Amino acid sequence: MAAPHRIAPRSGVAFELRRGQALTVIDPEGRQVADLLAFASDDVREVISNGRTFDYEETIHLGTGNRLWSNRSNVLLTIEEDTVGRHDFLLTPCSEATFRHFYPTQPVHRGCFGNLAAALAPWGIVPDDIPVAFNCFMQVPVDGSGKLKVLPPDTRPGDSIRFRAERDLVIGLTACSAYDSNGGSFKPIDYRVD
Amino acid sequence: MAAPHRIAPRSGVAFELRRGQALTVIDPEGRQVADLLAFASDDVREVISNGRTFDYEETIHLGTGNRLWSNRSNVLLTIEEDTVGRHDFLLTPCSEATFRHFYPTQPVHRGCFGNLAAALAPWGIVPDDIPVAFNCFMQVPVDGSGKLKVLPPDTRPGDSIRFRAERDLVIGLTACSAYDSNGGSFKPIDYRVD
Repeated sequence: MAAPHRIAPRSGVAFELRRGQALTVIDPEGRQVADLLAFASDDVREVISNGRTFDYEETIHLGTGNRLWSNRSNVLLTIEEDTVGRHDFLLTPCSEATFRHFYPTQPVHRGCFGNLAAALAPWGIVPDDIPVAFNCFMQVPVDGSGKLKVLPPDTRPGDSIRFRAERDLVIGLTACSAYDSNGGSFKPIDYRVD
Repeated sequence: MAAPHRIAPRSGVAFELRRGQALTVIDPEGRQVADLLAFASDDVREVISNGRTFDYEETIHLGTGNRLWSNRSNVLLTIEEDTVGRHDFLLTPCSEATFRHFYPTQPVHRGCFGNLAAALAPWGIVPDDIPVAFNCFMQVPVDGSGKLKVLPPDTRPGDSIRFRAERDLVIGLTACSAYDSNGGSFKPIDYRVD
């Protein structure tokens, strides 16, 4: 088993994941969110799509056994193991604009969106190519009227989710920068490639 | 008030909508779905985003008073009037791949995705630029466990939704081609620009 890498609080990374490899995203301290993106290595205009995933998986709550589908209707990642069972695929990565909107009295940060854009730039991925991310550990309950809330994650230290790559991929991954999604305390995220 | 245009069953159109103009989408026979896309005219990489809209509107059920936001965090359309109150912004347009997946015994159709791609091509919009559409009148209930279903719309003949353009836009609009979303009977959609 490979040693984990650490993503510093409020930052992001990108790396290649080969077909068949496993990516484990770990919340080392608990109550932190990691925004995950996956692009096809051979053409980065193919990317995970929340709409295609909701359509084919027939649920908005994704966990063990569910697959993350691309905008071209191919499976990019399968969720193999998940100690949490609560993630979000509804909301876009936090960004300068969302900081201004939701936290008008706080300093603006480039957020997960800016961190992902910077980390993914070496693969020719531009900001407009960034769709809704799969937000590991993020808790976004939707009530019967459709209203949603962002709550801190339920995760305990060491909780994790493991994905299997079904294609050669470029992965973007963050330790989330927003206040609401992690209860206001910025923490690292660990990940492992096996 | 302008005369309505008719979109034939299982087809789609694209047209420009100027800032300040109103677009009314009408279900002339009832129980039909219309997939709507809106791109900024001055740069078509700016497009409606379900994730940004869910984030800023804090709901997945959009109706009168809600706004459709772009991937760049700008408002493109405001919903001014809505006689239905039930639409969908979770699911991607039906496509050849979704026909093969959900209706394996039926003939494959290019679906709303193919119809939108063809109609929008003159503006330089390519298939990979097509995100989740705002699916007017589509009924996609989500239960407490996150599971979703596609039911026929609740619309009666003449039901409508009116949008106001907050930017100069390129609009894509269809009369849906899928079986489940309209109860298995393909029907036209009408629209009016005022």
